Amino acid sequence: MAQLLKAKEAADLVYENVGQCVRRYQEQGIQPHLCTLLVEGDPASAYYAQAKCKLAEKLGVTFSLHTFPREVTQAELTKLIVQWNEDPGVHGILLELPLPPNLSAGALERVISPEKDVDGVTPTNKLATVTGSPGLYPATPEACLRLLKHYGYRLEGKNVTLIGRGQTVGLPLFHMLQREQATITLCHSRTPDIAFHLRHADIAFVAVGRPGVVTKGIVHPKLVVIDAGINETDDGAIVGDAAEDVREAVSAVSPVPGGVGTLTTAILFENLMKAIALQADAKEAGR
Amino acid sequence: MAQLLKAKEAADLVYENVGQCVRRYQEQGIQPHLCTLLVEGDPASAYYAQAKCKLAEKLGVTFSLHTFPREVTQAELTKLIVQWNEDPGVHGILLELPLPPNLSAGALERVISPEKDVDGVTPTNKLATVTGSPGLYPATPEACLRLLKHYGYRLEGKNVTLIGRGQTVGLPLFHMLQREQATITLCHSRTPDIAFHLRHADIAFVAVGRPGVVTKGIVHPKLVVIDAGINETDDGAIVGDAAEDVREAVSAVSPVPGGVGTLTTAILFENLMKAIALQADAKEAGR
Repeated sequence: MAQLLKAKEAADLVYENVGQCVRRYQEQGIQPHLCTLLVEGDPASAYYAQAKCKLAEKLGVTFSLHTFPREVTQAELTKLIVQWNEDPGVHGILLELPLPPNLSAGALERVISPEKDVDGVTPTNKLATVTGSPGLYPATPEACLRLLKHYGYRLEGKNVTLIGRGQTVGLPLFHMLQREQATITLCHSRTPDIAFHLRHADIAFVAVGRPGVVTKGIVHPKLVVIDAGINETDDGAIVGDAAEDVREAVSAVSPVPGGVGTLTTAILFENLMKAIALQADAKEAGR
Repeated sequence: MAQLLKAKEAADLVYENVGQCVRRYQEQGIQPHLCTLLVEGDPASAYYAQAKCKLAEKLGVTFSLHTFPREVTQAELTKLIVQWNEDPGVHGILLELPLPPNLSAGALERVISPEKDVDGVTPTNKLATVTGSPGLYPATPEACLRLLKHYGYRLEGKNVTLIGRGQTVGLPLFHMLQREQATITLCHSRTPDIAFHLRHADIAFVAVGRPGVVTKGIVHPKLVVIDAGINETDDGAIVGDAAEDVREAVSAVSPVPGGVGTLTTAILFENLMKAIALQADAKEAGR
């Protein structure tokens, strides 16, 4: 049976650092404050927002959850984000996805101030993730990388097969992995033979958002699998993109739940701490 | 012997379209105008700038080459770019690289108006290349793709090995290739065994900027090689990244000179035509 790369320990380390950081900021008179925008209609989003709320409380972070009915307009949401951008008492802005189809997440993401963008969704931070320049990087790909490293794996010189090329996880993760000096093969829905590309992989990352993308039949006993998928089955269970039986056939695999997602939440708070530092720098630079 | 994927025919097609486009703009009272900034010190850059000047003349495009001595300051160059940005009679801005080490190309690139950025070097266009949103894409990766397609090759479902991960060619090319539905393996200086990754490739792109990155010994008879390298040897010859003997061992290879570089220049003028359209759109939108 594979080693299960559980994220709790790595997440606890992040929370410990965040907690210390919160206390230091409070001593300087800064009360860290994360604002989250949620539009009703997706029960999973509401659940994740509540989970962050509880964690914030534990960490001493102020958490404002602004929930809107489905009928809210793009203009109302934009106005709120602009208010948050301008409010020096707000340090992080998070947009819970998905939004109802009549609203554009992309247009809202472009409004968020890059220095308050704790999930790296603004154009400025997307580009920073590509070029490797300083900024706030998206939390899920960062969690994928961090989880692997927490268990002592190195990426330099390794063959990595990355399955999934979404703008939120796959593509930013690709750039982070290449900066870690891995040789990456990017597979996707139009790859005729994903099994072939897993055969020579040392490490596989899966970020498709569909259960069973990776199965026992296409993996090998030396493979390490990091599963970034979070899917809800018909009976309400949360499963990853790798099938359950993959555990019987690989060297190590991250569980879902309890893997990448667990660390992602922690990294959002870590990014909030970075965001406060960036805002202080910007203030000092007189912007 | 391999088929030589010469670019002349593809470039001529581009020039034919550009020529027609120039005449249409002239009929509307618009005289296309490309401004190039060159800092003395690199003979190759001066040569390329002159070559573009001659082509511009043939196409009916006004070409202004502003040459500065090595002692020029960043502020002087920035000022000129800002003037060009604001001048409605200037449609395209090109910065010849490399610059002397005391000058920052990146800082100048950030100043260029995205709508006049004919080589896709501004942050806005770099991000557009990543996300696939409309914009002006960098000319060299576009030329790599166009040359391959000109010879009837398709990318969907193919295994592509891309060698080189520079911000100018490799990384933008990666994004363009994945949108063409290829499965791409990105190799670089820290890839232990590039030969292995060429063995299962249908198509290889090389964009390292060093001669002999790909040699006869690591290719196979079905491989198609697109060579984006332009290197000057000690005796002044221009050679690509693929060694000369690769021609004896692959199915097809693009020559250097006469390959990617030839088409790149044509695409810069094509981008100038697109730039004029973008500026007209922006004007109409009242920006």
